[in-house]
Amino acid sequence: MEYRRLGKSGLQLSVLSFGSWVTFHGQVDDSLSDRLMGLAYDSGINFFDNAEIYALGESEKMMGRVLKRKNWDRTSYTVSSKAYFGWRGANNKPNQTGLSRKHLVEACHEALQRMQLDYLDLFYCHRPDRNVPIEEVVWTMTNLIQQGKILYWGTSEWTAAEIMHAHMIARQYNLIGPVVEQPEYNLFRREKVEVEYAQIYKNEGLGTTIFSPLASGILTGKYNKGVPEGSRLSLEGYEWLRNRNLLDENLAKVALLQTVADQLGTSLAVLAVAWCIANPNVTSAILGATKEEQLKETLKALEVYPKLTKELMHEIDTIMGTAPKVPTH
Amino acid sequence: MEYRRLGKSGLQLSVLSFGSWVTFHGQVDDSLSDRLMGLAYDSGINFFDNAEIYALGESEKMMGRVLKRKNWDRTSYTVSSKAYFGWRGANNKPNQTGLSRKHLVEACHEALQRMQLDYLDLFYCHRPDRNVPIEEVVWTMTNLIQQGKILYWGTSEWTAAEIMHAHMIARQYNLIGPVVEQPEYNLFRREKVEVEYAQIYKNEGLGTTIFSPLASGILTGKYNKGVPEGSRLSLEGYEWLRNRNLLDENLAKVALLQTVADQLGTSLAVLAVAWCIANPNVTSAILGATKEEQLKETLKALEVYPKLTKELMHEIDTIMGTAPKVPTH
Amino acid sequence: MEYRRLGKSGLQLSVLSFGSWVTFHGQVDDSLSDRLMGLAYDSGINFFDNAEIYALGESEKMMGRVLKRKNWDRTSYTVSSKAYFGWRGANNKPNQTGLSRKHLVEACHEALQRMQLDYLDLFYCHRPDRNVPIEEVVWTMTNLIQQGKILYWGTSEWTAAEIMHAHMIARQYNLIGPVVEQPEYNLFRREKVEVEYAQIYKNEGLGTTIFSPLASGILTGKYNKGVPEGSRLSLEGYEWLRNRNLLDENLAKVALLQTVADQLGTSLAVLAVAWCIANPNVTSAILGATKEEQLKETLKALEVYPKLTKELMHEIDTIMGTAPKVPTH
Amino acid sequence: MEYRRLGKSGLQLSVLSFGSWVTFHGQVDDSLSDRLMGLAYDSGINFFDNAEIYALGESEKMMGRVLKRKNWDRTSYTVSSKAYFGWRGANNKPNQTGLSRKHLVEACHEALQRMQLDYLDLFYCHRPDRNVPIEEVVWTMTNLIQQGKILYWGTSEWTAAEIMHAHMIARQYNLIGPVVEQPEYNLFRREKVEVEYAQIYKNEGLGTTIFSPLASGILTGKYNKGVPEGSRLSLEGYEWLRNRNLLDENLAKVALLQTVADQLGTSLAVLAVAWCIANPNVTSAILGATKEEQLKETLKALEVYPKLTKELMHEIDTIMGTAPKVPTH
Repeated sequence: MEYRRLGKSGLQLSVLSFGSWVTFHGQVDDSLSDRLMGLAYDSGINFFDNAEIYALGESEKMMGRVLKRKNWDRTSYTVSSKAYFGWRGANNKPNQTGLSRKHLVEACHEALQRMQLDYLDLFYCHRPDRNVPIEEVVWTMTNLIQQGKILYWGTSEWTAAEIMHAHMIARQYNLIGPVVEQPEYNLFRREKVEVEYAQIYKNEGLGTTIFSPLASGILTGKYNKGVPEGSRLSLEGYEWLRNRNLLDENLAKVALLQTVADQLGTSLAVLAVAWCIANPNVTSAILGATKEEQLKETLKALEVYPKLTKELMHEIDTIMGTAPKVPTH
Repeated sequence: MEYRRLGKSGLQLSVLSFGSWVTFHGQVDDSLSDRLMGLAYDSGINFFDNAEIYALGESEKMMGRVLKRKNWDRTSYTVSSKAYFGWRGANNKPNQTGLSRKHLVEACHEALQRMQLDYLDLFYCHRPDRNVPIEEVVWTMTNLIQQGKILYWGTSEWTAAEIMHAHMIARQYNLIGPVVEQPEYNLFRREKVEVEYAQIYKNEGLGTTIFSPLASGILTGKYNKGVPEGSRLSLEGYEWLRNRNLLDENLAKVALLQTVADQLGTSLAVLAVAWCIANPNVTSAILGATKEEQLKETLKALEVYPKLTKELMHEIDTIMGTAPKVPTH
Repeated sequence: MEYRRLGKSGLQLSVLSFGSWVTFHGQVDDSLSDRLMGLAYDSGINFFDNAEIYALGESEKMMGRVLKRKNWDRTSYTVSSKAYFGWRGANNKPNQTGLSRKHLVEACHEALQRMQLDYLDLFYCHRPDRNVPIEEVVWTMTNLIQQGKILYWGTSEWTAAEIMHAHMIARQYNLIGPVVEQPEYNLFRREKVEVEYAQIYKNEGLGTTIFSPLASGILTGKYNKGVPEGSRLSLEGYEWLRNRNLLDENLAKVALLQTVADQLGTSLAVLAVAWCIANPNVTSAILGATKEEQLKETLKALEVYPKLTKELMHEIDTIMGTAPKVPTH
Repeated sequence: MEYRRLGKSGLQLSVLSFGSWVTFHGQVDDSLSDRLMGLAYDSGINFFDNAEIYALGESEKMMGRVLKRKNWDRTSYTVSSKAYFGWRGANNKPNQTGLSRKHLVEACHEALQRMQLDYLDLFYCHRPDRNVPIEEVVWTMTNLIQQGKILYWGTSEWTAAEIMHAHMIARQYNLIGPVVEQPEYNLFRREKVEVEYAQIYKNEGLGTTIFSPLASGILTGKYNKGVPEGSRLSLEGYEWLRNRNLLDENLAKVALLQTVADQLGTSLAVLAVAWCIANPNVTSAILGATKEEQLKETLKALEVYPKLTKELMHEIDTIMGTAPKVPTH
């Protein structure tokens, strides 16, 4: 396994990591999650990603039960949680969501309880919340670090300007700024990671734990034969993925990408993940899996990414047509 | 004339202002510039925009001569200059460009000399310079303010993250941050002004003095009949504008837009400028002109923009197809 | 016993202190360590030095057991630990070493557990770690102080510039800077303590708890008769000491030094330790011992060091030839 | 000519620059200095180095006269001066030396007068002064920048810890830290530039304008035939150079170095200068010259330094035996 520093912080994450997003609880039971996490850990993965929203807390509980059973040295792995997924809901419980001090503190406590941990290694603001001043967010995260409940904090799907705003507050009030952003990154979505954050990597330091390296499965090629029963795209609540991604155009690109995978003697999924970690600004690509073979397969990306020559990268760019324009000044 | 606060600063600019970009020296002589600036001033315009790059200093010299001759009360108008237009050139004088303290200080001195002024009201970093730490820029601008040589400073075509970086430095070191950004803004280019800077208007305060409200003339409709001799698009060095903008697709949109102008009983040019200042985050739209009638005509935008109802704005969006997607979270 | 202020801090350490470096666990069992620490404590020694690396944690466990059995008033002594000994190892557990927040926090917790203590008096960064920003180190040490888990923090074998970097961060962010450095110091190694740190004693304040006052035993004269079985230089893993120090040249100097010891009517070992504490910038010289007589003997340095006149110091300098050049400006 | 950024600042200096140390006034008259500076400027050199101590002010006066006569664009070159050369003298004028606010301000004013300039681009503390708090130095330099009298400030022959102290003060009080250090650097003196400042280049940013690339001429090989009349080593007041450098051992090394120069088809002097600028942490190597051919010759270093392969550098290290030990942790 390869490990990379999380931005300019001292923490080092495995370049491939394990996420439980839609899989835990929904598609995966305790016994399977035990085997999947065991395989991940034995393969050198040291980052297990989670969030309060994943299966509404059940994903964290399941991960907590596995970690307890495994009894691995707590210093040998890192665990995350995340608060607030971006909608406040139409209910009368305004403080059980958002990035207010009340919810961040309570969400942290609840995550620790669900996962049966003393502290989280990483705690993310799962989305920006424009009803809370960023001062309050940075103060609260710093307080949670000071209290020993979390070690580092970060953001997910924030704009570069919002991340810089958090750094501005941290500098002004002598607080601790974010060290990581968790954006979507894959062959279809490149703008944020490749252009928007470019100056922040260099100036402030920013690690990225990217999600959806396979673009919700489209980049595995499996949807080129139609949406199978039981696949993520067929699950309830993922209509938006279907709408957004299942364009015929994209599937045509995926079909062409197969030729590159063939040249490398690998699968589309492995190629897609390898392409992500070939970007040195990607600290870790989060892998989901519902089967052990699936995880074993994508771990091969570690061996494949060094084979991505400039020429192959150029060929991929030509096929996909998704390379963002980099500003000339 | 209507005046708007420049972001959260105390300075107020006329919502329409006068720029000398390509016109002065190249297309306009002293006598004409005298009449144009006189007309602008008499119409209530209080902001005259300039830059070291415009006609390589000749534009500033010409404006300086006019201002001297006019002998208007120095307190009744504001003047700007800008340093560094984004390329360093292939020469052996690396310090005569860029945003280093040396060039910013020397560029300010030279602009004051060329314009025969004691101080600039606004001084812009004409483009970002990634070979200079933003610390050095913010320090230098603050020093120039402390020395009384400039009153406010700003940026042009910086990213939101870079503007926030400047604010971060200002907060950290108790310096003076930028109050204005000068972006391109028109019916073809909306992303930066409408989406990218959105949080900064609200949080830090940011005025905008937008350029190219007519998209280099395309939005006047004149190119719908071909590129006339003597128009900006026919001038040497503006091939890039032709390449970028003169797509048939855009001209077709402009033709459709004529129907909206007709409904309002106005010209395309006036409609295009009116649309810009209908955006309350636009402090001032910079107008260029090579003829007095041209300037008189576009000044009508002041009367037209209050007539832009929600319905008309929607119709314009439908015709243009350029409204940027606003993130939902 | 004499006590000295640790730099400009309020803590006072005995000028001779007790370290368990290679001795505990490896050469010394519980019963002997009980007697050695008892002798030290009864002699007025109030500082017991330890580190996570010493016998890989066993040294801390043994010291913890002795402290528990002795049941001395917790306020009557001070205990230290140290994290990260400068190599990251060739393993797949990158976060179980280094000076990241994760390892510093976890190393502190583990040291407290091994030593069965509620807090450490001193916690050292055992070596610099250039893969972690010094910001992160100073923040974490300050947090551990805020949480009551440590009382003071310091460094070991850092350069003067790195110590100043830590102070810079502390000043900038209103955090707590280091108060102590633990360098090697003896008649063979004088540069760091006598020249490199000179300005820091005066300006920032810096205590030193120096190790190897006997240069791994060479200054006792015992190696002048060859390396005996069971001595540190004969132990596995200490080849580097042999290579570095056992130069015939050095042994010749040690032989000459005997004449000075004779003049003072003392042993070479006592003279070597006395010479260290004659330097007022040495707060405490850490003594190791595997026998009670050995410890009793070196404690005599307390009586010998006031007898080191300027003339004797000059004679020692002449014999050793190791006095560093002090810059004239 | 090649230009390099001065540390992390925005200023760019020619990698070879022109110094007037012992030459101006003493060995060089106005007519010759005019020709030398003209040759330097025409070769692309944009940095002219000076100091109050050089020929006790006469060097600055001569340079000022030449600059006036040349009437080059002030933005096309950079000029420095330096205050306090490290000894206070045994006189009754304590405030006409040192780094107090009084002397720094007055030395700056006097240098500007002598050189007939409005501002210095660089102003150096020529040596550390331990009778002045570094707070006072950093405050004064910042004030001089704010007043527009200097653009950047730096140090000469300060320790890494002292430079970091200046940065600490700058961070604490929101002042402007130093951006450049002027150390001696040549094949005989490598420690400071290669080891001591190593972390500062990376962390704070530090440019270096190195002096004595030829080790007072020894590296030209001319002293291998004895000290000629009129050479620097024969001048009054340079006995210390003779004592320090004219060791037979060093001359033997220089003789061996000739074989490397021969391989490259160049002279010893050119090789010695090329070796200096092959170090990327050297911003500019300051050349002195008393003859035009001499300056022309050393300018060839620009073409030679890219030819210094790893193998040749290794061969040079072996001949010289002066490569400093780099700490392993």
